[in-house]
Amino acid sequence: MMSGPAVHPVEAPPMTMAAPMVRMKDFQGMPGTLGSLFLRLCQFVFAVISICVMVTTSDFPSVTAFSYLVAAVGLQIIWSLVLAIADVYAILVKRSYRNVAIVSLFAIGDGITSTLTFAAACASAGITVLISNDLEKCKVNHCTRFMSATAMAFLSWFAASPSFFLNFWSLASR
Amino acid sequence: MMSGPAVHPVEAPPMTMAAPMVRMKDFQGMPGTLGSLFLRLCQFVFAVISICVMVTTSDFPSVTAFSYLVAAVGLQIIWSLVLAIADVYAILVKRSYRNVAIVSLFAIGDGITSTLTFAAACASAGITVLISNDLEKCKVNHCTRFMSATAMAFLSWFAASPSFFLNFWSLASR
Repeated sequence: MMSGPAVHPVEAPPMTMAAPMVRMKDFQGMPGTLGSLFLRLCQFVFAVISICVMVTTSDFPSVTAFSYLVAAVGLQIIWSLVLAIADVYAILVKRSYRNVAIVSLFAIGDGITSTLTFAAACASAGITVLISNDLEKCKVNHCTRFMSATAMAFLSWFAASPSFFLNFWSLASR
Repeated sequence: MMSGPAVHPVEAPPMTMAAPMVRMKDFQGMPGTLGSLFLRLCQFVFAVISICVMVTTSDFPSVTAFSYLVAAVGLQIIWSLVLAIADVYAILVKRSYRNVAIVSLFAIGDGITSTLTFAAACASAGITVLISNDLEKCKVNHCTRFMSATAMAFLSWFAASPSFFLNFWSLASR
């Protein structure tokens, strides 16, 4: 038999006024944080998968956009690796990058590499869709590999965008 | 003969507290300025040329990327026109947009439309290069028109980027 009250009293949560002005300096994802390292590793891994899948299709050099994808994603790999090493160093010495010149360099580099990766992914996507949907020539082409490489390039760009925006934001808000 | 005092007493100017902190609000290119209006008109004009050139090629619907270019550039036209009207209104009433919500809306809208335009331009560029350089089938295709439409879409994106970055910067620096 139920005799307890159906509605239990609930404690009101304490009104916290915590952190009225938190500067975004150590926000996860900014250079020198674990979030940033995670983003860099995502960029790196997706870009490596993309370039490996694309290179296994023997006929990728015959299409300019696919060659360009390999070049752009290769640049993304180098950039993400260098920045990942910089993040590891910053985490090990327990510091973050607050120098305007360095954060500007990171933001500009991120902007350039992510734009190139995105452009390459879009161009490859356009051609992959042309081959598979518009021309329906998937039997003589490596459609699945082209699609996978393109998708991985998009994922790499998707991981690179937050890095760029957070760097840019931290630059603008100082 | 001068008998009057050489130095006239000067009334102390009233201590105005006007604008002790000059924010970057009225920097040219931010919403509500002539620079912004100029950028909007550039985006609009290039996008209109791009869509007109693409639509005159009768076979553009057979390629997904070209149809997508028409859709993305069409969205850019609407967005740029609306924001140009907003700028004209702000210039006429001699005010600028300082509301965080409005500037956020502008920044997000600019980010979305410029990314879509850039993606469409890249996809079209990939296919145009494929047709003209890799397959060398320009005799049966409207290569020049495809190239012109793509180039105009790139120019429209090129004019949209400063708008986005200035909005984003003005959002981050407040």
